[in-house]
Amino acid sequence: MTVERRHITGFSNPTVKALRALREKKHRKAAGRFLAEGLRLLTDARECGHVPEVLVLADRREPHPLLAALEASVAAAGGEIIETTPDILAKITGKDNPQAVAGVFAEFGTALEAIERETAEIWLVAQALRDPGNLGTMLRTGDAIGAGGLILIDDCADPFSVEAVRASMGAIFTQRIAQARWDEFEPWLRGAPAQLVAASLRDAQPYRGAPYAAPCFVMVGNESRGLPEPYEMACDLRVTMPMKGRADSLNAAVAAAVLGYEVLANLEG
Amino acid sequence: MTVERRHITGFSNPTVKALRALREKKHRKAAGRFLAEGLRLLTDARECGHVPEVLVLADRREPHPLLAALEASVAAAGGEIIETTPDILAKITGKDNPQAVAGVFAEFGTALEAIERETAEIWLVAQALRDPGNLGTMLRTGDAIGAGGLILIDDCADPFSVEAVRASMGAIFTQRIAQARWDEFEPWLRGAPAQLVAASLRDAQPYRGAPYAAPCFVMVGNESRGLPEPYEMACDLRVTMPMKGRADSLNAAVAAAVLGYEVLANLEG
Repeated sequence: MTVERRHITGFSNPTVKALRALREKKHRKAAGRFLAEGLRLLTDARECGHVPEVLVLADRREPHPLLAALEASVAAAGGEIIETTPDILAKITGKDNPQAVAGVFAEFGTALEAIERETAEIWLVAQALRDPGNLGTMLRTGDAIGAGGLILIDDCADPFSVEAVRASMGAIFTQRIAQARWDEFEPWLRGAPAQLVAASLRDAQPYRGAPYAAPCFVMVGNESRGLPEPYEMACDLRVTMPMKGRADSLNAAVAAAVLGYEVLANLEG
Repeated sequence: MTVERRHITGFSNPTVKALRALREKKHRKAAGRFLAEGLRLLTDARECGHVPEVLVLADRREPHPLLAALEASVAAAGGEIIETTPDILAKITGKDNPQAVAGVFAEFGTALEAIERETAEIWLVAQALRDPGNLGTMLRTGDAIGAGGLILIDDCADPFSVEAVRASMGAIFTQRIAQARWDEFEPWLRGAPAQLVAASLRDAQPYRGAPYAAPCFVMVGNESRGLPEPYEMACDLRVTMPMKGRADSLNAAVAAAVLGYEVLANLEG
Protein backbone atom coordinates (compact mmCIF):
# COMPACT_ATOMS: atom_id res chain seq x y z
CA MET A 1 0.00 0.00 0.00
CA THR A 2 1.41 3.38 -0.94
CA VAL A 3 0.81 5.93 1.75
CA GLU A 4 0.47 9.52 0.69
CA ARG A 5 2.50 11.97 2.74
CA ARG A 6 2.65 15.69 2.98
CA HIS A 7 6.09 17.21 3.50
CA ILE A 8 6.26 20.41 5.53
CA THR A 9 9.46 22.38 5.99
CA GLY A 10 8.23 25.84 6.98
CA PHE A 11 7.83 26.94 10.60
CA SER A 12 5.02 29.29 9.59
CA ASN A 13 3.01 26.60 7.81
CA PRO A 14 -0.59 26.75 9.10
CA THR A 15 -0.63 23.02 9.91
CA VAL A 16 2.49 23.43 12.06
CA LYS A 17 0.81 26.33 13.83
CA ALA A 18 -2.35 24.31 14.42
CA LEU A 19 -0.33 21.39 15.82
CA ARG A 20 1.72 23.64 18.08
CA ALA A 21 -1.47 25.25 19.33
CA LEU A 22 -2.50 21.86 20.77
CA ARG A 23 0.05 22.48 23.51
CA GLU A 24 -2.40 25.04 24.91
CA LYS A 25 -5.50 23.90 26.72
CA LYS A 26 -7.93 26.32 25.07
CA HIS A 27 -6.86 25.16 21.61
CA ARG A 28 -7.09 21.50 22.64
CA LYS A 29 -10.62 22.01 23.91
CA ALA A 30 -11.64 23.97 20.80
CA ALA A 31 -10.22 21.27 18.54
CA GLY A 32 -11.20 18.29 20.73
CA ARG A 33 -7.74 16.94 19.92
CA PHE A 34 -4.52 16.28 21.81
CA LEU A 35 -0.89 15.44 21.05
CA ALA A 36 1.08 12.35 22.02
CA GLU A 37 4.65 11.64 21.05
CA GLY A 38 7.06 8.75 20.76
CA LEU A 39 6.96 5.45 18.90
CA ARG A 40 6.37 3.39 21.99
CA LEU A 41 3.51 5.50 23.25
CA LEU A 42 1.86 5.63 19.83
CA THR A 43 2.25 1.87 19.48
CA ASP A 44 0.59 1.38 22.86
CA ALA A 45 -2.20 3.63 21.65
CA ARG A 46 -2.63 1.65 18.43
CA GLU A 47 -2.72 -1.64 20.31
CA CYS A 48 -5.44 -0.18 22.54
CA GLY A 49 -7.46 0.82 19.48
CA HIS A 50 -6.48 4.49 19.33
CA VAL A 51 -5.15 5.44 15.91
CA PRO A 52 -3.97 9.04 15.45
CA GLU A 53 -5.88 11.20 13.02
CA VAL A 54 -2.63 12.89 12.05
CA LEU A 55 0.81 11.29 12.27
CA VAL A 56 3.83 13.59 12.20
CA LEU A 57 7.19 12.05 11.34
CA ALA A 58 10.71 13.45 11.41
CA ASP A 59 12.10 13.25 7.91
CA ARG A 60 15.51 11.91 8.90
CA ARG A 61 14.38 9.05 11.11
CA GLU A 62 15.57 5.47 11.38
CA PRO A 63 13.22 2.94 9.78
CA HIS A 64 11.40 0.75 12.30
CA PRO A 65 8.80 -2.01 11.82
CA LEU A 66 6.56 -0.52 14.52
CA LEU A 67 6.66 2.81 12.71
CA ALA A 68 5.68 1.11 9.46
CA ALA A 69 2.79 -0.58 11.30
CA LEU A 70 1.70 2.76 12.68
CA GLU A 71 1.78 4.41 9.26
CA ALA A 72 -0.26 1.59 7.80
CA SER A 73 -2.89 1.92 10.55
CA VAL A 74 -3.17 5.66 10.03
CA ALA A 75 -3.48 5.26 6.27
CA ALA A 76 -6.08 2.49 6.64
CA ALA A 77 -8.14 4.70 8.95
CA GLY A 78 -8.02 7.56 6.44
CA GLY A 79 -5.70 9.66 8.59
CA GLU A 80 -3.06 12.09 7.43
CA ILE A 81 0.70 11.53 7.46
CA ILE A 82 3.00 14.54 7.60
CA GLU A 83 6.78 14.53 7.30
CA THR A 84 8.71 17.43 8.68
CA THR A 85 12.15 18.40 10.00
CA PRO A 86 13.32 17.44 13.50
CA ASP A 87 13.43 21.19 14.30
CA ILE A 88 9.78 21.65 13.49
CA LEU A 89 8.86 18.49 15.35
CA ALA A 90 10.71 19.89 18.38
CA LYS A 91 8.70 23.08 18.05
CA ILE A 92 5.43 21.14 17.90
CA THR A 93 6.11 18.97 20.94
CA GLY A 94 8.02 21.61 22.89
CA LYS A 95 10.83 19.18 23.61
CA ASP A 96 14.47 19.83 22.78
CA ASN A 97 15.19 16.26 21.73
CA PRO A 98 11.88 15.18 20.28
CA GLN A 99 11.05 11.62 19.50
CA ALA A 100 10.86 10.87 15.78
CA VAL A 101 7.08 10.70 15.74
CA ALA A 102 4.03 12.42 17.20
CA GLY A 103 0.33 11.91 16.71
CA VAL A 104 -2.88 13.89 17.02
CA PHE A 105 -5.73 12.05 18.74
CA ALA A 106 -9.37 12.84 19.37
CA GLU A 107 -9.96 13.53 23.07
CA PHE A 108 -12.00 10.85 24.82
CA GLY A 109 -15.23 11.45 26.60
CA THR A 110 -14.80 12.02 30.33
CA ALA A 111 -18.32 11.60 31.65
CA LEU A 112 -18.57 10.08 35.11
CA GLU A 113 -21.38 7.84 33.89
CA ALA A 114 -18.90 6.01 31.63
CA ILE A 115 -17.04 4.69 34.69
CA GLU A 116 -18.10 1.07 35.24
CA ARG A 117 -16.88 0.58 38.77
CA GLU A 118 -17.35 -3.17 38.77
CA THR A 119 -14.71 -3.57 36.06
CA ALA A 120 -11.83 -2.88 38.49
CA GLU A 121 -11.08 -3.28 42.19
CA ILE A 122 -9.19 0.02 42.45
CA TRP A 123 -9.89 3.49 41.07
CA LEU A 124 -7.73 6.55 41.60
CA VAL A 125 -9.25 9.94 42.39
CA ALA A 126 -7.39 13.26 42.13
CA GLN A 127 -8.87 16.38 43.68
CA ALA A 128 -7.76 19.78 42.30
CA LEU A 129 -4.36 18.42 41.25
CA ARG A 130 -2.56 21.24 39.44
CA ASP A 131 0.55 19.52 38.13
CA PRO A 132 -0.03 17.68 34.83
CA GLY A 133 3.07 15.56 35.54
CA ASN A 134 1.40 14.29 38.72
CA LEU A 135 -1.76 13.40 36.76
CA GLY A 136 0.24 11.53 34.14
CA THR A 137 2.21 9.71 36.83
CA MET A 138 -1.05 8.71 38.55
CA LEU A 139 -2.33 7.29 35.25
CA ARG A 140 0.91 5.33 34.87
CA THR A 141 0.63 4.01 38.43
CA GLY A 142 -3.03 3.18 37.88
CA ASP A 143 -2.10 1.02 34.91
CA ALA A 144 0.52 -0.76 37.03
CA ILE A 145 -1.80 -1.57 39.94
CA GLY A 146 -4.63 -2.66 37.66
CA ALA A 147 -6.82 0.34 38.47
CA GLY A 148 -9.75 1.03 36.20
CA GLY A 149 -9.02 4.69 35.73
CA LEU A 150 -8.57 8.14 37.18
CA ILE A 151 -11.40 10.40 38.28
CA LEU A 152 -10.58 14.11 38.37
CA ILE A 153 -12.51 16.07 40.95
CA ASP A 154 -12.92 19.84 40.89
CA ASP A 155 -10.40 21.99 39.05
CA CYS A 156 -7.56 19.69 37.98
CA ALA A 157 -4.84 20.15 35.36
CA ASP A 158 -5.73 18.87 31.91
CA PRO A 159 -4.99 15.13 31.54
CA PHE A 160 -4.65 15.66 27.78
CA SER A 161 -1.79 18.17 28.13
CA VAL A 162 1.50 17.18 26.53
CA GLU A 163 3.13 16.89 29.97
CA ALA A 164 0.42 14.62 31.40
CA VAL A 165 0.31 12.41 28.32
CA ARG A 166 4.12 12.13 28.39
CA ALA A 167 4.23 11.27 32.10
CA SER A 168 1.46 8.68 31.65
CA MET A 169 3.81 6.65 29.41
CA GLY A 170 0.83 5.43 27.42
CA ALA A 171 -1.57 4.89 30.30
CA ILE A 172 -3.66 7.80 28.97
CA PHE A 173 -4.87 5.19 26.45
CA THR A 174 -5.48 2.33 28.91
CA GLN A 175 -7.03 4.08 31.90
CA ARG A 176 -10.58 5.45 31.92
CA ILE A 177 -10.64 9.16 32.69
CA ALA A 178 -13.59 11.05 34.15
CA GLN A 179 -13.97 14.65 35.22
CA ALA A 180 -16.58 15.80 37.72
CA ARG A 181 -17.31 18.27 40.45
CA TRP A 182 -17.43 16.94 44.01
CA ASP A 183 -21.19 17.49 44.21
CA GLU A 184 -21.60 15.28 41.14
CA PHE A 185 -19.03 12.71 42.22
CA GLU A 186 -20.32 12.07 45.73
CA PRO A 187 -23.93 11.16 44.77
CA TRP A 188 -22.61 9.02 41.92
CA LEU A 189 -20.20 7.24 44.27
CA ARG A 190 -22.94 6.56 46.83
CA GLY A 191 -25.31 5.24 44.19
CA ALA A 192 -23.64 1.83 44.37
CA PRO A 193 -21.18 -0.01 46.65
CA ALA A 194 -17.84 1.76 46.93
CA GLN A 195 -15.18 2.50 49.52
CA LEU A 196 -13.66 5.99 49.45
CA VAL A 197 -10.18 6.11 51.00
CA ALA A 198 -7.87 9.04 51.61
CA ALA A 199 -4.55 9.63 53.28
CA SER A 200 -5.25 11.92 56.20
CA LEU A 201 -3.85 13.20 59.45
CA ARG A 202 -7.33 13.40 60.99
CA ASP A 203 -8.75 10.48 62.92
CA ALA A 204 -6.85 8.05 60.73
CA GLN A 205 -5.62 4.49 61.13
CA PRO A 206 -2.29 3.12 59.89
CA TYR A 207 -2.38 2.62 56.12
CA ARG A 208 -0.63 -0.74 56.42
CA GLY A 209 -3.16 -3.55 56.45
CA ALA A 210 -6.18 -1.25 56.84
CA PRO A 211 -9.58 -2.84 55.96
CA TYR A 212 -9.64 -1.94 52.26
CA ALA A 213 -12.58 -3.19 50.21
CA ALA A 214 -13.27 -3.27 46.48
CA PRO A 215 -14.23 -1.25 44.57
CA CYS A 216 -11.79 0.98 46.44
CA PHE A 217 -11.50 4.64 45.40
CA VAL A 218 -8.11 6.04 46.48
CA MET A 219 -8.25 9.83 46.65
CA VAL A 220 -5.44 12.40 46.89
CA GLY A 221 -5.82 16.15 47.15
CA ASN A 222 -4.29 19.33 45.85
CA GLU A 223 -0.48 19.64 45.99
CA SER A 224 -0.50 22.62 48.37
CA ARG A 225 -3.71 22.40 50.33
CA GLY A 226 -4.45 18.67 50.42
CA LEU A 227 -8.08 17.57 50.53
CA PRO A 228 -10.79 19.88 51.86
CA GLU A 229 -11.91 18.70 55.30
CA PRO A 230 -15.49 17.87 54.20
CA TYR A 231 -14.09 15.59 51.49
CA GLU A 232 -11.92 13.78 54.02
CA MET A 233 -14.89 13.44 56.35
CA ALA A 234 -16.90 11.89 53.52
CA CYS A 235 -14.37 9.08 53.23
CA ASP A 236 -15.17 5.58 54.46
CA LEU A 237 -11.60 5.09 55.53
CA ARG A 238 -8.90 7.58 56.47
CA VAL A 239 -5.41 6.20 56.66
CA THR A 240 -2.08 7.65 57.62
CA MET A 241 1.37 6.86 56.28
CA PRO A 242 4.48 7.17 58.48
CA MET A 243 6.08 10.61 58.18
CA LYS A 244 9.39 10.30 60.00
CA GLY A 245 11.00 13.56 58.99
CA ARG A 246 10.15 17.24 59.01
CA ALA A 247 7.64 17.09 56.18
CA ASP A 248 3.99 16.32 56.85
CA SER A 249 3.04 15.19 53.36
CA LEU A 250 4.21 13.28 50.31
CA ASN A 251 4.14 14.28 46.68
CA ALA A 252 0.55 13.63 45.52
CA ALA A 253 1.47 11.05 42.89
CA VAL A 254 3.77 9.31 45.38
CA ALA A 255 1.01 9.19 48.02
CA ALA A 256 -1.41 7.70 45.48
CA ALA A 257 1.16 5.05 44.51
CA VAL A 258 2.15 4.01 48.04
CA LEU A 259 -1.50 3.80 49.03
CA GLY A 260 -2.54 2.17 45.74
CA TYR A 261 0.04 -0.59 46.08
CA GLU A 262 -1.01 -1.17 49.69
CA VAL A 263 -4.65 -1.50 48.64
CA LEU A 264 -3.64 -3.92 45.88
CA ALA A 265 -1.61 -6.10 48.27
CA ASN A 266 -4.48 -6.24 50.77
CA LEU A 267 -7.21 -6.96 48.23
CA GLU A 268 -5.09 -9.70 46.68
CA GLY A 269 -3.72 -10.96 50.00
CA MET B 1 17.40 45.49 65.44
CA THR B 2 17.29 47.52 62.26
CA VAL B 3 18.04 45.42 59.24
CA GLU B 4 19.59 47.16 56.28
CA ARG B 5 17.98 46.37 52.94
CA ARG B 6 18.85 47.07 49.38
CA HIS B 7 15.95 47.90 47.08
CA ILE B 8 16.29 46.81 43.46
CA THR B 9 13.77 47.71 40.80
CA GLY B 10 15.71 47.26 37.55
CA PHE B 11 15.66 44.02 35.57
CA SER B 12 19.17 44.76 34.30
CA ASN B 13 20.63 45.23 37.75
CA PRO B 14 23.79 43.08 38.03
CA THR B 15 22.60 41.45 41.26
CA VAL B 16 19.36 40.39 39.55
CA LYS B 17 21.39 38.97 36.69
CA ALA B 18 23.65 37.06 39.08
CA LEU B 19 20.64 35.63 40.94
CA ARG B 20 18.89 34.63 37.71
CA ALA B 21 22.08 32.94 36.54
CA LEU B 22 21.78 30.52 39.48
CA ARG B 23 19.01 28.80 37.53
CA GLU B 24 21.75 27.42 35.27
CA LYS B 25 23.95 24.61 36.46
CA LYS B 26 27.26 26.06 35.23
CA HIS B 27 26.63 29.30 37.10
CA ARG B 28 25.59 27.42 40.24
CA LYS B 29 28.77 25.38 40.15
CA ALA B 30 30.92 28.45 39.46
CA ALA B 31 29.31 30.33 42.34
CA GLY B 32 28.92 27.33 44.67
CA ARG B 33 25.47 28.70 45.43
CA PHE B 34 21.86 27.68 44.79
CA LEU B 35 18.39 29.19 45.02
CA ALA B 36 15.47 28.10 47.18
CA GLU B 37 12.10 29.81 47.37
CA GLY B 38 9.12 30.07 49.61
CA LEU B 39 8.64 31.00 53.24
CA ARG B 40 7.97 27.47 54.37
CA LEU B 41 11.00 26.01 52.66
CA LEU B 42 13.27 28.78 53.91
CA THR B 43 11.91 28.33 57.40
CA ASP B 44 12.65 24.60 57.22
CA ALA B 45 16.15 25.51 56.09
CA ARG B 46 16.65 27.91 58.98
CA GLU B 47 15.41 25.38 61.51
CA CYS B 48 17.94 22.90 60.08
CA GLY B 49 20.73 25.43 60.50
CA HIS B 50 20.87 26.71 56.90
CA VAL B 51 20.60 30.48 56.76
CA PRO B 52 20.60 32.06 53.30
CA GLU B 53 23.52 34.32 52.42
CA VAL B 54 21.14 36.51 50.45
CA LEU B 55 17.42 36.88 51.13
CA VAL B 56 15.25 38.32 48.35
CA LEU B 57 11.84 39.69 49.32
CA ALA B 58 8.92 40.89 47.22
CA ASP B 59 8.28 44.51 48.13
CA ARG B 60 4.50 44.22 48.35
CA ARG B 61 4.31 41.16 50.59
CA GLU B 62 2.12 40.40 53.56
CA PRO B 63 3.93 40.64 56.91
CA HIS B 64 4.50 37.28 58.60
CA PRO B 65 6.23 36.37 61.87
CA LEU B 66 8.21 33.58 60.16
CA LEU B 67 9.44 36.07 57.60
CA ALA B 68 10.53 38.42 60.36
CA ALA B 69 12.39 35.53 62.02
CA LEU B 70 14.07 34.72 58.73
CA GLU B 71 15.15 38.33 58.20
CA ALA B 72 16.57 38.46 61.71
CA SER B 73 18.57 35.27 61.15
CA VAL B 74 20.00 36.55 57.89
CA ALA B 75 20.93 39.87 59.44
CA ALA B 76 22.50 38.16 62.46
CA ALA B 77 24.59 35.96 60.17
CA GLY B 78 25.82 39.01 58.25
CA GLY B 79 23.83 38.14 55.13
CA GLU B 80 22.26 40.52 52.67
CA ILE B 81 18.57 41.40 52.36
CA ILE B 82 17.23 42.61 49.03
CA GLU B 83 13.77 43.91 48.29
CA THR B 84 12.48 43.84 44.77
CA THR B 85 9.29 43.78 42.72
CA PRO B 86 7.19 40.62 42.31
CA ASP B 87 8.01 40.76 38.56
CA ILE B 88 11.73 40.63 39.17
CA LEU B 89 11.30 37.90 41.77
CA ALA B 90 9.35 35.92 39.15
CA LYS B 91 12.21 36.40 36.72
CA ILE B 92 14.74 35.20 39.29
CA THR B 93 12.86 32.04 40.25
CA GLY B 94 11.42 31.36 36.80
CA LYS B 95 7.95 30.89 38.26
CA ASP B 96 4.92 32.83 37.11
CA ASN B 97 3.44 33.16 40.56
CA PRO B 98 6.53 33.34 42.72
CA GLN B 99 6.45 33.01 46.43
CA ALA B 100 7.16 36.25 48.27
CA VAL B 101 10.65 35.21 49.29
CA ALA B 102 13.70 33.42 47.92
CA GLY B 103 17.15 32.73 49.33
CA VAL B 104 20.64 32.03 48.08
CA PHE B 105 22.45 29.21 49.90
CA ALA B 106 25.95 27.81 49.73
CA GLU B 107 25.94 24.37 48.13
CA PHE B 108 26.73 21.53 50.53
CA GLY B 109 29.57 19.11 50.12
CA THR B 110 28.54 15.89 48.39
CA ALA B 111 31.46 13.57 49.13
CA LEU B 112 30.54 9.92 49.57
CA GLU B 113 32.78 9.77 52.62
CA ALA B 114 30.44 12.11 54.46
CA ILE B 115 27.67 9.48 54.39
CA GLU B 116 27.54 7.81 57.82
CA ARG B 117 25.53 4.75 56.96
CA GLU B 118 24.93 3.73 60.56
CA THR B 119 22.89 6.90 61.17
CA ALA B 120 19.89 5.59 59.20
CA GLU B 121 18.30 2.27 58.31
CA ILE B 122 17.40 3.31 54.77
CA TRP B 123 19.32 5.22 52.10
CA LEU B 124 18.03 6.04 48.63
CA VAL B 125 20.26 5.68 45.58
CA ALA B 126 19.50 7.22 42.16
CA GLN B 127 21.42 6.11 39.10
CA ALA B 128 21.62 8.48 36.12
CA LEU B 129 18.28 10.10 36.98
CA ARG B 130 17.76 12.94 34.51
CA ASP B 131 14.63 14.61 35.85
CA PRO B 132 15.34 17.10 38.65
CA GLY B 133 11.71 16.79 39.76
CA ASN B 134 12.25 13.08 40.35
CA LEU B 135 15.38 13.81 42.42
CA GLY B 136 13.53 16.36 44.52
CA THR B 137 10.60 13.99 44.99
CA MET B 138 13.02 11.26 46.12
CA LEU B 139 14.51 13.64 48.68
CA ARG B 140 11.01 14.43 49.95
CA THR B 141 10.15 10.73 50.18
CA GLY B 142 13.48 10.03 51.89
CA ASP B 143 12.62 12.55 54.57
CA ALA B 144 9.22 10.88 55.05
CA ILE B 145 10.57 7.33 55.43
CA GLY B 146 13.38 8.42 57.73
CA ALA B 147 16.10 7.76 55.15
CA GLY B 148 19.52 9.22 55.81
CA GLY B 149 19.94 10.71 52.38
CA LEU B 150 20.19 10.30 48.65
CA ILE B 151 23.26 9.02 46.81
CA LEU B 152 23.50 10.04 43.17
CA ILE B 153 25.32 7.55 40.97
CA ASP B 154 26.77 8.39 37.56
CA ASP B 155 25.38 11.29 35.57
CA CYS B 156 22.32 12.54 37.45
CA ALA B 157 20.45 15.83 37.22
CA ASP B 158 21.64 18.50 39.64
CA PRO B 159 19.96 18.19 43.05
CA PHE B 160 20.59 21.91 43.61
CA SER B 161 18.54 22.96 40.56
CA VAL B 162 15.53 25.15 41.26
CA GLU B 163 13.19 22.31 40.15
CA ALA B 164 14.80 19.71 42.41
CA VAL B 165 14.90 22.03 45.42
CA ARG B 166 11.25 22.96 44.84
CA ALA B 167 10.13 19.32 44.52
CA SER B 168 12.09 18.38 47.66
CA MET B 169 9.78 20.63 49.71
CA GLY B 170 12.65 21.38 52.08
CA ALA B 171 14.15 17.89 52.24
CA ILE B 172 17.20 19.24 50.36
CA PHE B 173 18.11 20.65 53.79
CA THR B 174 17.38 17.53 55.85
CA GLN B 175 18.72 14.70 53.67
CA ARG B 176 22.43 14.01 53.13
CA ILE B 177 23.36 14.15 49.47
CA ALA B 178 26.34 12.41 47.92
CA GLN B 179 27.48 12.16 44.31
CA ALA B 180 29.74 9.36 43.06
CA ARG B 181 30.54 7.20 40.08
CA TRP B 182 29.52 3.55 40.31
CA ASP B 183 33.15 2.44 40.53
CA GLU B 184 33.55 4.67 43.58
CA PHE B 185 30.21 3.77 45.13
CA GLU B 186 30.49 0.00 44.94
CA PRO B 187 33.83 -0.33 46.85
CA TRP B 188 32.59 2.20 49.40
CA LEU B 189 29.35 0.27 49.85
CA ARG B 190 31.19 -3.05 50.30
CA GLY B 191 33.61 -1.56 52.82
CA ALA B 192 31.04 -2.07 55.60
CA PRO B 193 27.74 -3.93 56.09
CA ALA B 194 25.05 -2.85 53.63
CA GLN B 195 22.23 -4.36 51.62
CA LEU B 196 21.79 -3.04 48.09
CA VAL B 197 18.24 -3.49 46.77
CA ALA B 198 16.77 -2.75 43.37
CA ALA B 199 13.47 -3.24 41.61
CA SER B 200 14.15 -5.61 38.76
CA LEU B 201 12.50 -7.95 36.31
CA ARG B 202 15.51 -10.31 36.38
CA ASP B 203 15.63 -13.18 38.85
CA ALA B 204 13.64 -11.17 41.35
CA GLN B 205 11.40 -12.02 44.28
CA PRO B 206 8.15 -10.28 45.22
CA TYR B 207 8.87 -6.91 46.84
CA ARG B 208 6.24 -7.50 49.51
CA GLY B 209 7.81 -8.91 52.65
CA ALA B 210 11.22 -9.55 51.04
CA PRO B 211 14.12 -10.03 53.49
CA TYR B 212 15.21 -6.40 53.75
CA ALA B 213 18.06 -5.61 56.16
CA ALA B 214 19.47 -2.34 57.50
CA PRO B 215 21.33 -0.38 56.38
CA CYS B 216 19.27 -0.91 53.24
CA PHE B 217 20.24 1.02 50.08
CA VAL B 218 17.22 1.28 47.75
CA MET B 219 18.39 1.97 44.19
CA VAL B 220 16.43 3.12 41.14
CA GLY B 221 17.79 3.65 37.64
CA ASN B 222 17.49 6.04 34.73
CA GLU B 223 13.98 7.04 33.60
CA SER B 224 14.33 5.50 30.12
CA ARG B 225 16.89 2.74 30.43
CA GLY B 226 16.52 1.57 34.03
CA LEU B 227 19.59 0.21 35.80
CA PRO B 228 22.50 -1.24 33.82
CA GLU B 229 22.48 -5.03 34.14
CA PRO B 230 25.84 -5.20 36.00
CA TYR B 231 24.45 -2.83 38.62
CA GLU B 232 21.38 -5.00 39.08
CA MET B 233 23.58 -8.06 39.35
CA ALA B 234 25.64 -6.34 42.06
CA CYS B 235 22.52 -6.03 44.23
CA ASP B 236 22.05 -8.23 47.28
CA LEU B 237 18.32 -8.35 46.67
CA ARG B 238 16.31 -7.87 43.49
CA VAL B 239 12.60 -7.42 43.98
CA THR B 240 9.69 -7.05 41.63
CA MET B 241 6.50 -5.04 42.04
CA PRO B 242 3.21 -6.13 40.46
CA MET B 243 2.71 -4.61 37.01
CA LYS B 244 -0.85 -5.47 36.06
CA GLY B 245 -1.26 -3.33 32.98
CA ARG B 246 0.55 -2.70 29.73
CA ALA B 247 3.48 -0.80 31.23
CA ASP B 248 6.54 -2.61 32.52
CA SER B 249 7.88 0.09 34.80
CA LEU B 250 6.89 2.81 37.25
CA ASN B 251 8.00 6.42 37.40
CA ALA B 252 11.43 6.34 39.10
CA ALA B 253 10.40 8.45 42.10
CA VAL B 254 7.23 6.36 42.51
CA ALA B 255 9.23 3.11 42.42
CA ALA B 256 11.62 4.46 45.06
CA ALA B 257 8.68 5.44 47.28
CA VAL B 258 6.71 2.19 47.00
CA LEU B 259 9.87 0.20 47.67
CA GLY B 260 11.08 2.59 50.38
CA TYR B 261 7.80 2.36 52.31
CA GLU B 262 7.87 -1.44 51.99
CA VAL B 263 11.42 -1.54 53.39
CA LEU B 264 10.36 0.76 56.25
CA ALA B 265 7.36 -1.44 57.12
CA ASN B 266 9.49 -4.59 57.12
CA LEU B 267 12.37 -3.16 59.13
CA GLU B 268 9.93 -1.77 61.68
CA GLY B 269 7.65 -4.80 61.64
